[in-house]
Amino acid sequence: MGEGIKLFKNAKIVNVFTKEVLPGAFGVERERILFVDYSSDGNVFSSVLSANPEAEVIDLAGAFVTPTFIDGHLHIESSHLIPSEFEKFALASGVSKVVIDPHEIANVCGKEGIKFMLSDARLLEVYVMVPSCVPASSFETAGAELGPEDIEELLKLDERVLGLAEVMNYPGVINRDPEVLAKIKAAKRAKKLIDGHAPLLTGEDLNKYIFEGVMSDHECTKGEEALEKLRLGMWVMVREGTASKNIYLLESLRKVGDLRRVMLVTDDISPLELENYMLKTLQKASKYVDPIEALQMVTINPATYFGLETGIKPGNQADFLIFESLEEFSLKDVWIKGKPLEFWEKTLLSHKKEATNKFTGTINYAFKKKEDFFIPGIDYGEPSGRARVIKPIKHSLITEEVLVPSSKIERLLKNREINRIYVLERHKGTERMGKGLIWGILKEGAVASSYAHDSHNVVVIGCELEDIVLAVNTLKEIGGGFVAVKQGRVIGKVALEIAGIMGASASKVINELKDFYQTINDLTDWDDLLLAMSFFSLSVIPEIKITDQGLIKNFEKVGLYTS
Amino acid sequence: MGEGIKLFKNAKIVNVFTKEVLPGAFGVERERILFVDYSSDGNVFSSVLSANPEAEVIDLAGAFVTPTFIDGHLHIESSHLIPSEFEKFALASGVSKVVIDPHEIANVCGKEGIKFMLSDARLLEVYVMVPSCVPASSFETAGAELGPEDIEELLKLDERVLGLAEVMNYPGVINRDPEVLAKIKAAKRAKKLIDGHAPLLTGEDLNKYIFEGVMSDHECTKGEEALEKLRLGMWVMVREGTASKNIYLLESLRKVGDLRRVMLVTDDISPLELENYMLKTLQKASKYVDPIEALQMVTINPATYFGLETGIKPGNQADFLIFESLEEFSLKDVWIKGKPLEFWEKTLLSHKKEATNKFTGTINYAFKKKEDFFIPGIDYGEPSGRARVIKPIKHSLITEEVLVPSSKIERLLKNREINRIYVLERHKGTERMGKGLIWGILKEGAVASSYAHDSHNVVVIGCELEDIVLAVNTLKEIGGGFVAVKQGRVIGKVALEIAGIMGASASKVINELKDFYQTINDLTDWDDLLLAMSFFSLSVIPEIKITDQGLIKNFEKVGLYTS
Repeated sequence: MGEGIKLFKNAKIVNVFTKEVLPGAFGVERERILFVDYSSDGNVFSSVLSANPEAEVIDLAGAFVTPTFIDGHLHIESSHLIPSEFEKFALASGVSKVVIDPHEIANVCGKEGIKFMLSDARLLEVYVMVPSCVPASSFETAGAELGPEDIEELLKLDERVLGLAEVMNYPGVINRDPEVLAKIKAAKRAKKLIDGHAPLLTGEDLNKYIFEGVMSDHECTKGEEALEKLRLGMWVMVREGTASKNIYLLESLRKVGDLRRVMLVTDDISPLELENYMLKTLQKASKYVDPIEALQMVTINPATYFGLETGIKPGNQADFLIFESLEEFSLKDVWIKGKPLEFWEKTLLSHKKEATNKFTGTINYAFKKKEDFFIPGIDYGEPSGRARVIKPIKHSLITEEVLVPSSKIERLLKNREINRIYVLERHKGTERMGKGLIWGILKEGAVASSYAHDSHNVVVIGCELEDIVLAVNTLKEIGGGFVAVKQGRVIGKVALEIAGIMGASASKVINELKDFYQTINDLTDWDDLLLAMSFFSLSVIPEIKITDQGLIKNFEKVGLYTS
Repeated sequence: MGEGIKLFKNAKIVNVFTKEVLPGAFGVERERILFVDYSSDGNVFSSVLSANPEAEVIDLAGAFVTPTFIDGHLHIESSHLIPSEFEKFALASGVSKVVIDPHEIANVCGKEGIKFMLSDARLLEVYVMVPSCVPASSFETAGAELGPEDIEELLKLDERVLGLAEVMNYPGVINRDPEVLAKIKAAKRAKKLIDGHAPLLTGEDLNKYIFEGVMSDHECTKGEEALEKLRLGMWVMVREGTASKNIYLLESLRKVGDLRRVMLVTDDISPLELENYMLKTLQKASKYVDPIEALQMVTINPATYFGLETGIKPGNQADFLIFESLEEFSLKDVWIKGKPLEFWEKTLLSHKKEATNKFTGTINYAFKKKEDFFIPGIDYGEPSGRARVIKPIKHSLITEEVLVPSSKIERLLKNREINRIYVLERHKGTERMGKGLIWGILKEGAVASSYAHDSHNVVVIGCELEDIVLAVNTLKEIGGGFVAVKQGRVIGKVALEIAGIMGASASKVINELKDFYQTINDLTDWDDLLLAMSFFSLSVIPEIKITDQGLIKNFEKVGLYTS
């Protein structure tokens, strides 16, 4: 008794149960919080100390103590790091629990990929929502499919599986599509949660979506939208990530009398923005709401929704943060399981990770040659009619179809007003390839990526066939990731060797990616080309996209040419 | 489609998710809420109406709509009504869900009694916490015992079993008694809740109690106590029942920034106070907090703790209340499963109840005669030393021991300064009887009761042996309840034929009880004699109590006489 007891005094404890900051002391024994003492005379502290005179006493000198954070909606894959690399950034920014939707790896590796995401992190607690839409549609070829029975099985896999992930097929829910309803029913039967994804859904359709059992949403972009969803009983996840920054929603949300169903989440985050990511979100949130209220949005609110532990409370795991100030969220120390993060960094987190060989070598197509990329009417045969050209819109997932007379294509390709775009099926060795044209993104060279929603086939955009060939062959050699080619030479590459979407070394991924962005400045004016490219193949978004199966226009396959 | 759709317009909807009152409309289809429309142009309402022109439209003319209430801690048995009779009062006072601890019937009838409590109500949703302390101690003989294995079994009985009921043995928890910890572990293993019961527990002991996993408390009587428990992460149930009225705790509790872990509960309620009981509690609560906040304490707060449905929200069961005003909580209408309470009163609630024969005839001792009640040193043998006399304290569960020279007993009995008190084992036919003396409660006659915590053996207090005999024999004849005798004649009786603690007809129980209280005014100055008598046998309370096993003084059996 007494061994390993640590006593913390002169703390300002942020009480997320009562929304108070209270002076107090607390004790930790091994991995758990032993007591919290808010009394004016510190009688519990004194009593424990006198019974355990050898206990270590740590004077916090008035610093703030908060629970560690919960990130309630996250795709770790978007950080391009495997969980055991991602976790270092999460922990250092105060996050000790993440609820992930391992949607990206599920599209590549199916159930085994989900199990990997659940098991790879060492200290970060990873909870899983089972991906509800794999594949996104029948118009693209993914590496795996998750039907209602698979979802049923995955919901029972592990107690860290908390529910069904974002039900993106909201039209299916509203129109009572049997397959999506079967997935929802499976989650209900298992008494698990059902996360939503319903951008701009409102009124009668939103009511129908909620009626079927969808409980949360993280896609709000308008204040009125977030208020409507909250008032209809949804849990509203305010998203602040790389692609979508919606923290301004708090300006509208703070008008209601109770924010208990509001959370702050990340959704997707670039490896280049990982540093202190949750602390930055809290800083921004504190411009709209009281810092304690912001803290509730990453502690007790998500803990309540997901049924997880939180708070500085006897019996809880001793996970807490020490802040010099709450105004700047200047984080001083992170304690997990009763030990400072430095301890874990030197021990558990520094150990070599399990081999992840089974998820490497996933770029499964034959080496290509120039002829494979020939487009009829351009590289052979006669042009006729008009060609459908994909016109992307900056900072939007939506594209437009532009019809260009075939006779003009050659000139437009030559002067780079349009580029070639291909999607190569890379899971099953079918060698299937979709071929198309896109309004000018590249001024020269070629860029290939194996991180492309939702099926993560290989997308390549290029000007010269030779550069395109070199890009996709190099991508295969490095096992996936990003490749840039200019004038017959590889000028940039980022290896994402795990499932073609994640790397096993954070420093390597981050350094390669920084270099990559610098390098491709010569090739394009697009400031986040890789992000934009990752959505050109997402077949469920209007107006026109391209998958390994060809052009998809508003949920229908179409040819490259029309009359 | 459209059949059975009801559309409610011009409502002021109390939104317990956001703590707002919002003008709006909503629709009900069969048993469920179809939509809620807070839009300024009522577009959802209009759309549903035009698609369903035959729908019934109900104009609420600006009345308030709230969810129905959840009573988070209740012993239905204290109402002396079986659930199917109790539910009429609960529903009429807005309560549609109760979380009960069927502790009393469990002491008499064990698991079968618990199953009866779970199944008897027709419309009221009854959820069960498994009694954690049956019997209360080894110093009394109950009709059943629930060990850790029984608790494990009961926790899996039904999905309406939500956890372990109030862990009254808080000294056992603090001192890590293996049996009580085994019960707590069973609840943890089953991922269920653990309710507490820890009057005035504070500081280090309270921390230990919470450390072991106890999550709530409903025993607070002091503001500082309630604040300490809330800040340590407990869910605080503010109790407002018949025996304990603690609503004033809100005066202290409202000082914190967040009351999401505060609930209003009943615990025990007399049949004579059932009318509008929860509405009265809300009225009182609104003197301390905003009425919407008070409503949250009987809706979303307990719903969150217990994992139950609440709120006016699409997909939820259409259970709601219509109020003319929230200031007085003047309840106009109750709707359950999409139908007004009047409908249910004429149909489901008016049907004859299931026979409950198996719980009748539970007063299982032989008819008694005068000699059975002879006390040594008084009725035979020589007096010697001093007699231990139980001295009750009005409005307190605690008693004091007063030592009286044996030679004076006869005179004190004769002038009614002291009375005889007996506890008759009534479950197992052992004919065991505890005999004792109590400071003057009755001026004449005898009163017997089979509702006596925790084992519900028969307690009888009396002046004359003949009256005592008549009282206990009459009690046996009526199958349990209360009997008053004066001058050799039964002057009052209340039949509680179900397990000797509940009656199967509300009007009969209430009328008999009213008459009974009037009748016994002649016999005693105690204003709630039956309540007081129900605690004289509770062996876990200091200083001196009496059970079928004799006098129990601070957890030890003692004789009637001492030196």
